[in-house]
Amino acid sequence: MSKPIKLCNISHYQSFIDKFDTFLLDCDGVLWRGNDIIPGFIFSFVYFIGKKLLFITNNSAKSRANYLEKFKKLNIEAYEDEIFCSSYASAYYLKNVLKFPKEKKIYIVGESGIADELALEGIRHCGLSDNNIQTFKSDDIVSDPEVGAVVCGLDRYINYTKLAKALHYLKSNSDCIFLVTNDDATFPLKDFVAPGAGSIAASIIKAVGREPDGIMGKPNKPMMDCIAQKFKLNNERTCMIGDRLETDVQFGINGGISTLAVLTGITAEKDLLVNDAPIIPDYYMTSFGDFSKLF
Amino acid sequence: MSKPIKLCNISHYQSFIDKFDTFLLDCDGVLWRGNDIIPGFIFSFVYFIGKKLLFITNNSAKSRANYLEKFKKLNIEAYEDEIFCSSYASAYYLKNVLKFPKEKKIYIVGESGIADELALEGIRHCGLSDNNIQTFKSDDIVSDPEVGAVVCGLDRYINYTKLAKALHYLKSNSDCIFLVTNDDATFPLKDFVAPGAGSIAASIIKAVGREPDGIMGKPNKPMMDCIAQKFKLNNERTCMIGDRLETDVQFGINGGISTLAVLTGITAEKDLLVNDAPIIPDYYMTSFGDFSKLF
Repeated sequence: MSKPIKLCNISHYQSFIDKFDTFLLDCDGVLWRGNDIIPGFIFSFVYFIGKKLLFITNNSAKSRANYLEKFKKLNIEAYEDEIFCSSYASAYYLKNVLKFPKEKKIYIVGESGIADELALEGIRHCGLSDNNIQTFKSDDIVSDPEVGAVVCGLDRYINYTKLAKALHYLKSNSDCIFLVTNDDATFPLKDFVAPGAGSIAASIIKAVGREPDGIMGKPNKPMMDCIAQKFKLNNERTCMIGDRLETDVQFGINGGISTLAVLTGITAEKDLLVNDAPIIPDYYMTSFGDFSKLF
Repeated sequence: MSKPIKLCNISHYQSFIDKFDTFLLDCDGVLWRGNDIIPGFIFSFVYFIGKKLLFITNNSAKSRANYLEKFKKLNIEAYEDEIFCSSYASAYYLKNVLKFPKEKKIYIVGESGIADELALEGIRHCGLSDNNIQTFKSDDIVSDPEVGAVVCGLDRYINYTKLAKALHYLKSNSDCIFLVTNDDATFPLKDFVAPGAGSIAASIIKAVGREPDGIMGKPNKPMMDCIAQKFKLNNERTCMIGDRLETDVQFGINGGISTLAVLTGITAEKDLLVNDAPIIPDYYMTSFGDFSKLF
């Protein structure tokens, strides 16, 4: 069984960077953990000047513009075009891959990040105004032939009417597309985890009795297909950097690019070196911040 | 492959009734469909005088007392003790099978039927007051060592806080019992289906990452175990009557009792007689109302 190559000195760091033109970076666990930044990571960026850096996150609640605000707060220089969150991926996929028809609209079970990104792609949407419905009334459930897709993401405003509407649109129209922004079972908060987009989607999947037509976020292929199409990736010169084996590293493997795991998130060195490790990155290093040692 | 025996004349009806002492009756699809009663079924009851009739339903939103009101409206004479809904089954199971400790309480993701039945069994509960929470606040998620079980059923007041609390109680305490009232994917309304208890539970199952410790409703064994324990069933003299193969008939088969399918619900004769039918009842007849022809 092959083992990942450990990057542990300056010469390793430099030759790793030289191997690639494009780096896909997971954020939480690589650049920050919750509100705490990973020491040294901003200085590390200096050594990536001239390289293309893309920030890839499964979060669907935020738009790219929302993410940029977070980057600014952390003093990270970034551009909206370098951010690929699952809300944007969903909008991009609907417009550019599925060629979602202009006369149709999306029913959103999710938050404003999805709505904002759909609007930017010129795709009509509805659903957010159902956030405030407290009491389910069966009269609220009516067919709407304009709804051509249901997009489900993390939804902290979930209610029974939204679930029932999603079910009804998907059941009453077999052509209605069912897209899930990402399959994360949980959503990390400061001291505990809350239900993730995958948990909200599970409810609809169970009720409808069929799997989604697409799950966008890491480790799934649709998100990578969108990134590859938009940025014209050269797989041999692209590397995914992340802390989670089953999402980040698997995402790179599924996409046919190189992978680097960092140990500042939920993966420990022993998880990588265990004999029957099911997911093995090409490289690993202690922290993305260690590239700053090139200084 | 064996085929079910069709009951289609008076002599069949009489000998069928004579074979059994106890009949477990599904309600929706057997006695009524939505608000429409099945013709003749009330006269059929005359021929079951002296037999034990139990009404078995997966509905968890109602208590037995609520069900009795529905029976009264339809002019069906019944007693609370003859009704076995999944809300009551959950309370019975917690008290009599799991011996749920008195100092603990239940977190309910569900409706008042569950709360009412738990209270009648002397089991403390919480959760219903979270129905009105519109905005999720992470400060609302705090550990509560008194919560010893999460019971999830149909919940038309579902919100993110309730899902997050259920997840937190189950994640933070591995001894916390996870009970689901029934696994119905959908809940039938007049013109369409809405998400069922199984759909609400799917969200928690996905987030927690483990299956429930028990699923009460048909076709699962725990409900039958409760009925068998409470009514001291003689399996050889007991028959389940229902319209759904995968819930009612499978429930009877799982419980080791005889089964009769009726064609007034969602099962058609061709479903029963198809060569590779996966679930085969012992008997079938057009309608439970046909027993009235004995008159």
